[in-house]
Order: sequence, then structure tokens, then C-alpha cells
Amino acid sequence: MGKPYVSLAVQLLICCALMMPVSAQSVAAAPSPSSPAPATRNFTWDVEYIMWAPDCHQSVMIGINGEFPGPTISANAGDLIRVEVTNSLHTEGVVIHWHGIRQIGTPWADGTASISQCPINSGERFTYEFIADKPGTFFYHGHFGMQRAAGLYGSLIVNGTEQQPEPFAAEYDGELNMLLSDWYHENVYAQAAGLDGKDKHWEWVGEPQTILINGRGQFGCSLGITGDRRACDRRKRDALCKEGDKSERCELIRRSECGPFCERSQCSPVVFDVDPGKTYRLRIASTTSLSALNVQVQGHKLTVVEADGNFVAPFDVDDIDIYSGETYSVLLTTDQRASSSSYWISVGVRGRRPKTPPALAILNYTNSKPGRSSWPASVPPATPAWDNVTRSKEFTYRIKARDGTPTPAAAAVDRRITMLNTQDWVQGHVKWAINHVTLSLPATPYLGAYFYGIEDIAFDSSGESPDGYDRRYDIKKPPGAQAPAARVPTTASDRVFRIAHGAVVDVVLQNANALEEDVSESHPWHLHGHDFWVLGYGDGVYDHARDSRKLDTATPPLRNTVVLFPHGWTVLRFVADNPGVWAFHCHIEPHLHLGMGVIFAEGMEKLRELNVPREAITCGEAKTASLSLAPAVAPSRP
Amino acid sequence: MGKPYVSLAVQLLICCALMMPVSAQSVAAAPSPSSPAPATRNFTWDVEYIMWAPDCHQSVMIGINGEFPGPTISANAGDLIRVEVTNSLHTEGVVIHWHGIRQIGTPWADGTASISQCPINSGERFTYEFIADKPGTFFYHGHFGMQRAAGLYGSLIVNGTEQQPEPFAAEYDGELNMLLSDWYHENVYAQAAGLDGKDKHWEWVGEPQTILINGRGQFGCSLGITGDRRACDRRKRDALCKEGDKSERCELIRRSECGPFCERSQCSPVVFDVDPGKTYRLRIASTTSLSALNVQVQGHKLTVVEADGNFVAPFDVDDIDIYSGETYSVLLTTDQRASSSSYWISVGVRGRRPKTPPALAILNYTNSKPGRSSWPASVPPATPAWDNVTRSKEFTYRIKARDGTPTPAAAAVDRRITMLNTQDWVQGHVKWAINHVTLSLPATPYLGAYFYGIEDIAFDSSGESPDGYDRRYDIKKPPGAQAPAARVPTTASDRVFRIAHGAVVDVVLQNANALEEDVSESHPWHLHGHDFWVLGYGDGVYDHARDSRKLDTATPPLRNTVVLFPHGWTVLRFVADNPGVWAFHCHIEPHLHLGMGVIFAEGMEKLRELNVPREAITCGEAKTASLSLAPAVAPSRP
Repeated sequence: MGKPYVSLAVQLLICCALMMPVSAQSVAAAPSPSSPAPATRNFTWDVEYIMWAPDCHQSVMIGINGEFPGPTISANAGDLIRVEVTNSLHTEGVVIHWHGIRQIGTPWADGTASISQCPINSGERFTYEFIADKPGTFFYHGHFGMQRAAGLYGSLIVNGTEQQPEPFAAEYDGELNMLLSDWYHENVYAQAAGLDGKDKHWEWVGEPQTILINGRGQFGCSLGITGDRRACDRRKRDALCKEGDKSERCELIRRSECGPFCERSQCSPVVFDVDPGKTYRLRIASTTSLSALNVQVQGHKLTVVEADGNFVAPFDVDDIDIYSGETYSVLLTTDQRASSSSYWISVGVRGRRPKTPPALAILNYTNSKPGRSSWPASVPPATPAWDNVTRSKEFTYRIKARDGTPTPAAAAVDRRITMLNTQDWVQGHVKWAINHVTLSLPATPYLGAYFYGIEDIAFDSSGESPDGYDRRYDIKKPPGAQAPAARVPTTASDRVFRIAHGAVVDVVLQNANALEEDVSESHPWHLHGHDFWVLGYGDGVYDHARDSRKLDTATPPLRNTVVLFPHGWTVLRFVADNPGVWAFHCHIEPHLHLGMGVIFAEGMEKLRELNVPREAITCGEAKTASLSLAPAVAPSRP
Repeated sequence: MGKPYVSLAVQLLICCALMMPVSAQSVAAAPSPSSPAPATRNFTWDVEYIMWAPDCHQSVMIGINGEFPGPTISANAGDLIRVEVTNSLHTEGVVIHWHGIRQIGTPWADGTASISQCPINSGERFTYEFIADKPGTFFYHGHFGMQRAAGLYGSLIVNGTEQQPEPFAAEYDGELNMLLSDWYHENVYAQAAGLDGKDKHWEWVGEPQTILINGRGQFGCSLGITGDRRACDRRKRDALCKEGDKSERCELIRRSECGPFCERSQCSPVVFDVDPGKTYRLRIASTTSLSALNVQVQGHKLTVVEADGNFVAPFDVDDIDIYSGETYSVLLTTDQRASSSSYWISVGVRGRRPKTPPALAILNYTNSKPGRSSWPASVPPATPAWDNVTRSKEFTYRIKARDGTPTPAAAAVDRRITMLNTQDWVQGHVKWAINHVTLSLPATPYLGAYFYGIEDIAFDSSGESPDGYDRRYDIKKPPGAQAPAARVPTTASDRVFRIAHGAVVDVVLQNANALEEDVSESHPWHLHGHDFWVLGYGDGVYDHARDSRKLDTATPPLRNTVVLFPHGWTVLRFVADNPGVWAFHCHIEPHLHLGMGVIFAEGMEKLRELNVPREAITCGEAKTASLSLAPAVAPSRP
């Protein structure tokens, strides 16, 4: 670390990316207005603790360059993104994952601790270099412990170009960007301590205190519901600042008539200024720790056009569901009467009994008065009932690929992996498991273990993760209520799935009952290094003979994150054409913490052809190996 | 890491330690009762987050093996202590410093991040091996960021042996151990964010909420003052557990008549059971983050016999002052009337206006009913007025070496370093500085930089830290009020003092005014790798021509920590006979965080003769170096 370098492989990828299959998506598209030649986008980031009041309640957060959320990265498709990260956290390592970027040829830049790289230790500098391989709405976030939940995230937007245009580019006049998250007042170290607790000391994180829109929310304030801004402000002002607190924040609150909700405060609602009679592309990404969300824009229809950086067949809705790890673009036309100049955007919780009030933002018709927002007079729209799963399914099932999206070859599946999702006790600890194995990440990143040929000492390489489960397991019952023959104890392991280069892989995600009777949760599964086709969903147990015929191989959408509904199944397919070690996991932060993920070691036989910087992957056992062994593959630099 | 090893050098030191000069201290001593041959003391530790209620207020802490404070290490002088540390913190690295152990020949085991070793990263294992080179009262603690203040500490007790007896061994019948600390409700990440804040965002940590005795205190409870245990318990019970909180802790509190102060709770006062008519050795160590303390045992005289693992000429006191980093042993005779069966031990704050109530423990005359403690009926003794500095000086000045302690050669000083202690603004940040340089630690440990011969890229090796300051500087004025000629801007640096092997070094610690007018603070300075002689103290500016004659070279006590009084000076001397890179710093955690320390790179020309395990020091630039350069010195293992 410390010394930046330019990798030849990355430079070559600038060209390669322009020929990637994703450009086939752009058949019906008008050229994007801005189409310069691929450029290098340089960013210099300092990751540090900051005191921040994202929901008017001050906490320590992990910020970037003194801000929360981190800076928005904006690039054109084909650009090289180069982010030099300095870790100024005093004792924590850090890595940053570029969610939705496939990292073609750069698996070491995927930013996953224990998997693709060593943590960047305190005081160290590390440079990520990767191609923004296609246009779309992405984001980035910490991928070490629960650092995402500590606030380490931001937006990553890749614009279409002449070479890689977006098909709906001509249909909108302007863009709005909305990054959704949730926030807990208990810090992540305490959250982790609770989740790690044994027996009676195990403690679930509970529901977040606040939903944030672009890092802003309002904790414990009835503002959203009643619109009574004044009264709320007064209450908040009194509650927020202790007598004698002369911090800048409190001085600001005291001076300000509008209290913490004034526009200068860190927790004032986001105002999206729009002109009337125009169409906007609203980008929405969710990096929540836990919550599934629903987004409504008061009085406005939404046309879904993009999901996870892939083009979908446009469809109109009143609101959208969004799970952690997903992104969407919707088109929105400012066609409402000019008499009401502003409208609420409501973001509410789905799928879990919501103890967290909806988040609010304002869509403000400027009428040539930009920057001056008036608050909507009406009550914000209520988001749908949290437990209306049918409604969620209806929305999700409507998402189909736009014409021109590559389709999966129907017959050529090389491998099918069924993944049973269970919750179970493991030696006194509550864990989530796949096929009765809960993921326990090793200290040595897998990519380094393969690079140095030390799989045998770095993790359990004696076999692979299991490809399926015993079908006698009853997915409607908790593990403890299974018949003796189906009662398989859950064990912890850091084993991987080894995937041969070029293999076509089908994954059947099979949901089951959690520890509590009649409870099964939604899980948004996210795959690194790839998009996958979502071939289908269903309720109950997936039966290949019966259900495979219902799978859609003609218009399946490409995604990088897909939801698995309670007591149901989801089938997806991907082509193992990107050598690397990739995580596939539930994007709910505490679920991943409790082991809900698997590792694909893909095309490791091609590792030799990649230009992996040794600095990125030399730690743990790989450090010892590098000190005493010849590397298993040729080093990238002398 | 990961694989333990046995270092030959360490094995040899088992023998060498028996011949160390410290054994000369034991002239007048009766043999210690237990005198087995040197043994290896093995410990296996898991460092992890725990939810704990050290002062009845639940927080996340860094614990060891699920406990706070960490396990007490007990060994005999000459034993090899072997601690295998597994880091189960999810994102934080960790190191452990063995405070007061000189690490003769094992500088890589000193447990200082950025200095003696790489952080043990999350999931990694590292084994410390070092000799308990002499008897005494020590402790251990985290030495990375502010992890000590997060609760990572415990006691380390080394007993005398036949070969290394303690001179007062025959004078006591039993031992009591008291580890003092302080506790903040704001977590260390937030504390660091405040201390790192720029301009108006800079925020001091303030006073701790609670003083802890063996990890126990009682927050916000008048118990200590009034002795009204019942009323306090009722109040605490109601305040501690929110309605509906069904955690084990709250269930326990609700079930228990005595509330959080019952003996089973984590915050009940410590009870020291004693028999009447006996003499006890009370060991006292302070690992506070901030507070200087005073200890009194109601109705009992104390005879000071040991300080920092060195024997002092015994003297009697009513109470003792103790600064962070110091340890004492006092003898106490249970000579009070048997009619009152228990007595308060009060531990109050010194030197800062105390917003923190005194901590309390109970000395319980068992009268053959061990384990059954009754609470003292009387009010606990008040500790001395916080601002009576004269009283502190009187106590400190009385500490002299016991007969037989080695004395420093009076004439043979090779180097004199004067260290001006100032507080100043540096680019918008408040810092503490030595000779106008604030310490900024590098990512690469110095020991690794020297080992790999990469000083030039690992830190600023272009020169040394300054040996003194411009005497026109007025120590009675803040830096901003200095005359123009004396106004030296403070800068940040990671430069070191290079000390030649065998040099006799005098250090003059010169205090000065802080940023605020008429404010100068006490600073307990702690040296790693050595004991030093405390030659003298004085008020105002040290004038060598005048003051050197007053220095005591006949009976100066040996210490590893010494206080520098407000607007005063302290002179100490050490012999650079232990090659290693050693920190010398103010032991107040936030002061060190703000740069109040220096680095001695001592005897680096002898580094080649040490058996430094490369795993310990290969990270940062040393990692890169190890991947591409031949090591500067012969590697310890092939």
C-alpha cells in the first residue's frame, strides 16, 4: 500500500469494457447527451470518524472526507475509476465495495474483506482501480464487519455514452438521486456484541430508529405525520441540546428559527427542486442495514426503467418496493397542478412490523424560484401495509428485461446449486445458514490464499460447500421441529463453491422457516462480480420437474440483487466468465454477520492470467506465506 | 501470525533474567515463600466485544475471554509468559502492551502499534512471549488508538522468588489487588472523533463518568456518599431497565432485592475480605484514561513499599496519590476495633475539578465469616481537595529507593534531552507537543522499518526529533502569548530520537502553560523498555547550572512512570541497554492521542542480534518491502 500504481490489465480493460455484452442492451436507445472518450476519474478519500446528526441525534459515524454520506461518484460508462483510500480510522481496517460494478478482470478491487483483499489498515493507503463497465445506478459501501451500518456508503452513478447509450435517455429532462438507508442509535460494535452473544446474551439489533434519504432523517418527530413543523422543531430544539452545550451544532439549532430542520442542518429533509411540466429520472438505491422499503411520490406516477444497472421493460406504478442492495431508476413527470408547489416523498418500511416511522423528502416545483421550498400542506402518503406480501410479489414479478437484453441459453446449464436458507442455533449462537452451513469468514482473503497456493492452511479447502439439502427437510417448520431424519445440525465453515471458468450456473434459493414458528423472512440476495438472470419465483418448495417449466428464459431481467420471499423460492442463472472470488449473500447487514452467505471461487485456474497486485492480498496466512514461500503464481511486480 | 513459535532468544532470556541488575534490589529481603524454577505461563485469550455494565450502565466494551477486566496474569519472577491472542473484534486490529515489563531482548513483544509491531488484524492470532524479569505489580492494556479506554486491560502480577526475593516479603500475611481505571459513557470512537475535530468541531473528552475499582463502579448513585443502599438500589432499578426489557441483566435486577449492587452484578462494589490482626500487601495499579487518583482506606495507615515494580524506602501515609501508568504496593495492618467489621476504601480524583464521584470498595473484616460483607455504617472518607498540588508533591517527593537499589553513575551522562510540554493549535487541530513537535504515528511500525532498512519511506528519517527548545519560550504563557522570537509553530512529525546502545541519557521534562491562560496540567510520563531513575523535581524552568546540583543521584527511585507537575520540571535518567523502539509518552490516553509522546529508537545497530519474528513487523511499507526487497537484517526464520 502507500504507493499508487497503474495496472496494465486495468488499462487494457478500458478498451475491453466497451465490447462487453451489456452494450447489447442499448438497442432501442437514443445516444446519451454526454459522450466523451473514456476518462480516468480520480478520487482521494480519507475515511474517518465524524460526529454527525443524520437524524438530528448526534452519533459517531464513519465518514469520508468529513462528510456523511460519502461523496457521490459520477462517471461515464467505460471510464476508469481510481479511488485512493486513506484509512484514518484509528484501529479499524477498512475496505470499500463498489456495489453493482462487476470488476471484470479486477477481482482484487471488489472491496470485500476476507474475500478479495486484505483490510486497509489504519494509516495505510490503498488505490482501487476499476472500469465503470456499463451505465446504471450503483452505490459503494464498506464490506468489513458492519461498517456499512456505521455509515460508510455513498452513491455511484455511471452515465450512458454514445458507445453505451441508455434506451430511455431521450425520455427525461433531468435527474434526481435518492440513496436510502436506515440508522440505529446503538453503535455497530454494540450491535455486533449483541449478535455474537451466547445463549441468553444473544440480542437482535431490532428495528432501526430512522430511515434516511441521502443521509437525512428526523428521529422521534411527528413532523412527517402531522406536518406540524413548528411544534416539532421546538420540541426537538429543547431535547437535542443539553444546557451548556456550546457546540457549533447546538449554537446553530438555538440561533435558527426552524431548528434542526432548517436547510443548513444535517438532518433537514431533502428537497428535490424540479420544474413543472418536465420528466425526471429519479435514481433510487437502497443500502439499508435491515429494512425493506417502499417509495411513493405524492400524486405522481412512476415508470420503472432500470434495475441494478440493467434496463427493464418500462412499467408504471404508484410506488416501488426496494430491498437492501437493489437500485432502480424511475421516470416521473411533473404534471401536477402548479397551485400546490410541493409534494411529499414517503419512504416506509415493508415486510417487518414497522417501528420505524417513514422517511420524508420534498419534491418542490420551483416555478422559477429554485432553492425556495415550501412545505407540502397535505399529509404525506401512507406506504402500503407492511405485511401485504402479495403486493410486494406483484411489483417484483412485473420486472422483466427490456428488449435487447441478452437472454440465457435455455439448455446449457452446467451446475445447479440449491441453497436452503435456515436460521438455527450453533453452539449457543443464533446463525443463518445455507444448506445447514453458516459462513465464517477466514482472516486470510480467499483471493490471497489461491494466489499463494495456501488454500489448505488459509481455510477449509478439504471439500466444497454442499450443493443442496436433504429434501426431507420441512421448510414450513423451525429446525427444532423437523423429523429426526431431516434434523441436520448447523455447522460453521469457511468452505467455498469452486466454479469452473465458463460454467453456466443455476442457483435455486429456497427459503424456509426461521427459529420462530410460522416466521419466514424476505432476504435480498446479492451477487458480486456478476449480473444474473432472474428466471422465476414461487411459493413453497422448488420442485425442478414441476417448476423448471415455469421459469422464464425469454425475458428474465438481469439483476445483481434479488429477493427471496418468505417460504418461497427464487431461481437465478449466471455465467462464470469473470475469474475471482465472489461473495453471494443476503444484503441485510446483521444477517450476513450471522453467516448468511456463500463464497464462489470462480475460474481460479485463470488466476495466473490476472494482474493481481500482491499488496492487495498479502496478509494473514498469505503474509507468512509471502515471507517464506515462492508465490503460487507469478507476482505482478518484481 | 496464526502459527505460534518458540523463539530461541526468549528461551535464553529465561536464564539471563535471573542475572539482571534488579536482583540487586533484594539485599535485605527474606526469601519469598514460593520459589519454583522458572516456568512457562501459558494464556489463551480471545479479544472481543462484550456488553457489560461496569458502572451499572450497559455499554459495549473490549473484553478478553468474555470478561472485563481481562484475566489477571500471575507469574513468578523469571517465568516465561506466553499469551496467544486471537483477535475477534470484527474490524479492529489489536495489540497488547505489558506495562512495566522491560521486554529485555524481546522489543517486538512490547505490544505497541506503529512502534513495536503490526496490529493483529481481525481473525488473526499472535503469540507474545516475554520474561517476567522481576517481581512487582504490573498491568497490561491495549496500545492501539484508544483501546485501553475501551476496557482492554487487566492485572499482571509477578511474585518474588528465592532468586529474586522481595525485601518486604516476610512482612505481610496476604495480598489484595486493586486495579483502578475510569470509564466514559461516550464510546472511544466518538471520543476520537471529537479529539480529531477541526476548529470549532474539536471536542475534549471531558471528565469520566465513573471511577472503577477492579472494573466496578456505580454511576449516578449517591450510595457512596450517603451509604443509603436501599434507596439507591430502588432508584437504580427503576432507571436501569426500560419497561419491557427482558434481557437477562434486567431480569436479574428485577428479581434481586439488592438491585444492581447485589454481589452477582457486574457493578457491585468490590469487597476485600481480610482477617483482623494481620498485615496485607495491597497492590494498586492505575490504568485510567485521564484521572489522577487518591486512595484512602478508612481508619488504616498505609506503608508504601513498592512502586512500578521497584522497591522503595518504606514510608507511612494516610493515603496515596496515583497517576495513570503507576503502580504501588502498600502494607496495611487490620488493626481496627473488631466492633466495626467493615471500612470504606475511597478513590477520588486529583488535579482536575472532579465531576466524577469517588469510587468505593469495602475492606471487610471477616471475623471467620468470609464472603459475608456488611456495609460500613459510616460515611466514606473524603479524598483530599483536588487542587491541593502541594500535597501531591509532598507525597511524590517522599518516594526514594530502598537500600540496595542500583544507583546511577553521577558523571557519565552521554546525552541530555530537554522536552518542553506544550499544547498548541496545529492546522486547526488541538495537539500536545514536545519541543513544538506533536507525535503522529506512522502506519509501518518503526521496528519493522529498521528491520527492513526502509526508514526513508516508512517515516521521516531525515533528521531526529529536537533535543531541546528555545529558552526564550516563556513557560508561564500560552503559545499564542509568546514573544515573537519565541513563537515556534507546532508541527506534526513521526521522527524519532536515535539513541546509541549503552548511552546514559538524561531527560528533562519541562512543563509549560497550556492553551488556556494560567493552566498547566500534570502529565504522567511512561517509558517503555526501561526503568529510569527519578533524579528530581522542581517548579518553574529547569536551569542546569543551578538545578543539577539539587538532583539526587544517591537514592533516586527507579520507576517506569513519573509525574510532571504543572509549570514544573522532572529529571530522569536511563541507560540505553535494551535495543528496541520504545515509546515515551504521557499516559493520559487522550493526551497521547493528541500527540504527547516521543519515540526512542535505541541501539538499532544491535537489531541484527535480536531474533525478531518477521510476522510481527511485516505490514504497511514493510509488507511491500518484504515482497520486493531483501531484508536489511537476516530473517529469523527461513
